[in-house]
Amino acid sequence: MDEPINLVLFSGTDDKLQAAAVLTAGAAALGKPVNLFLQYWALDAFRRERIDRDHGLAPEAGAEGRGHVEALRIAGQASWAETLRQAKDLGAVDIQACSLSMDLLGLEESDLDPLVDGVEGVTAFYLNAGEGQVVFI
Amino acid sequence: MDEPINLVLFSGTDDKLQAAAVLTAGAAALGKPVNLFLQYWALDAFRRERIDRDHGLAPEAGAEGRGHVEALRIAGQASWAETLRQAKDLGAVDIQACSLSMDLLGLEESDLDPLVDGVEGVTAFYLNAGEGQVVFI
Amino acid sequence: MDEPINLVLFSGTDDKLQAAAVLTAGAAALGKPVNLFLQYWALDAFRRERIDRDHGLAPEAGAEGRGHVEALRIAGQASWAETLRQAKDLGAVDIQACSLSMDLLGLEESDLDPLVDGVEGVTAFYLNAGEGQVVFI
Repeated sequence: MDEPINLVLFSGTDDKLQAAAVLTAGAAALGKPVNLFLQYWALDAFRRERIDRDHGLAPEAGAEGRGHVEALRIAGQASWAETLRQAKDLGAVDIQACSLSMDLLGLEESDLDPLVDGVEGVTAFYLNAGEGQVVFI
Repeated sequence: MDEPINLVLFSGTDDKLQAAAVLTAGAAALGKPVNLFLQYWALDAFRRERIDRDHGLAPEAGAEGRGHVEALRIAGQASWAETLRQAKDLGAVDIQACSLSMDLLGLEESDLDPLVDGVEGVTAFYLNAGEGQVVFI
Repeated sequence: MDEPINLVLFSGTDDKLQAAAVLTAGAAALGKPVNLFLQYWALDAFRRERIDRDHGLAPEAGAEGRGHVEALRIAGQASWAETLRQAKDLGAVDIQACSLSMDLLGLEESDLDPLVDGVEGVTAFYLNAGEGQVVFI
């Protein structure tokens, strides 16, 4: 159980990011280190001035699904960003931006929310992942 | 080969669910235990009164892709639900609903198709996963 | 580090395929064998006469995201197909089409780009994967 779980986050919709945050928090609660590697639209969602915005849902959500998610938001359910902040308090959660995606989106590290610990390339991601699971979300 | 393969199902379109069902059946045929953990729109697709409906395809499918899938349906190809039922006969396939997604969608266990064996939290999911693969679909 | 990393490619949009190509190239650069297994819309993108076309982006990309990707294309960034070709020169990268998806799309092996090494079923995929990671993209 000492090997980290390594989540590559690609999608930036609130439902996928919430699923990723729950998997992160669950692993952290069990004492498992978690590495998050942010690419493309997931990275875009971690921009400092956008992280607390509405990032939409997967296209398949439908009107009924949107209604359920909206009801939870009004009821005060923690956002994915808040769940990740709590997971960081709970355990060893490291969040890195993919350097290629930083270039793609024209971002500097100062554009990102403080939840993000740094920027690294895919080789560093693999080396940190070691023998642990790689999960693409 | 004794560690289970653990599939987190998030998407509820027929093409992704069919891909998941094929990966499940293949692992079961090789004698590998499979745990499925249903979240969000995948869980919604396992509702008792919806499981046999058309759940659409990924947005990228396009008109030609839709035509191919429709042609197979008419030709009598097994649906993903049927493929999963067969996989359960073949091997150790356990299907659990994510308790957080049950709350999100306002579902009771009795709302779900009998293919679903129970409801559990993310911690239980990880404990059952053990050292096995985690795959997010 | 001798176990392969095994990527199941389902999505056929240029952003997801580029993410997959980067994960492939990174693993190959570290000397890790990589197996790619092409299903559904990813397989469709590897058709000989379509591989170099524009395959669009995930629906969530948005106008700003589209602009960034287009700017890179104009600046001459390698396409995912080119990145995969380079990864094959670099290391042990094997690309197999899923036989069920070949049937679904009505394809023959001669319809596919030479990047694809062959056609296999899901059982062969698992046997080649051995104890290595399975990642669904």
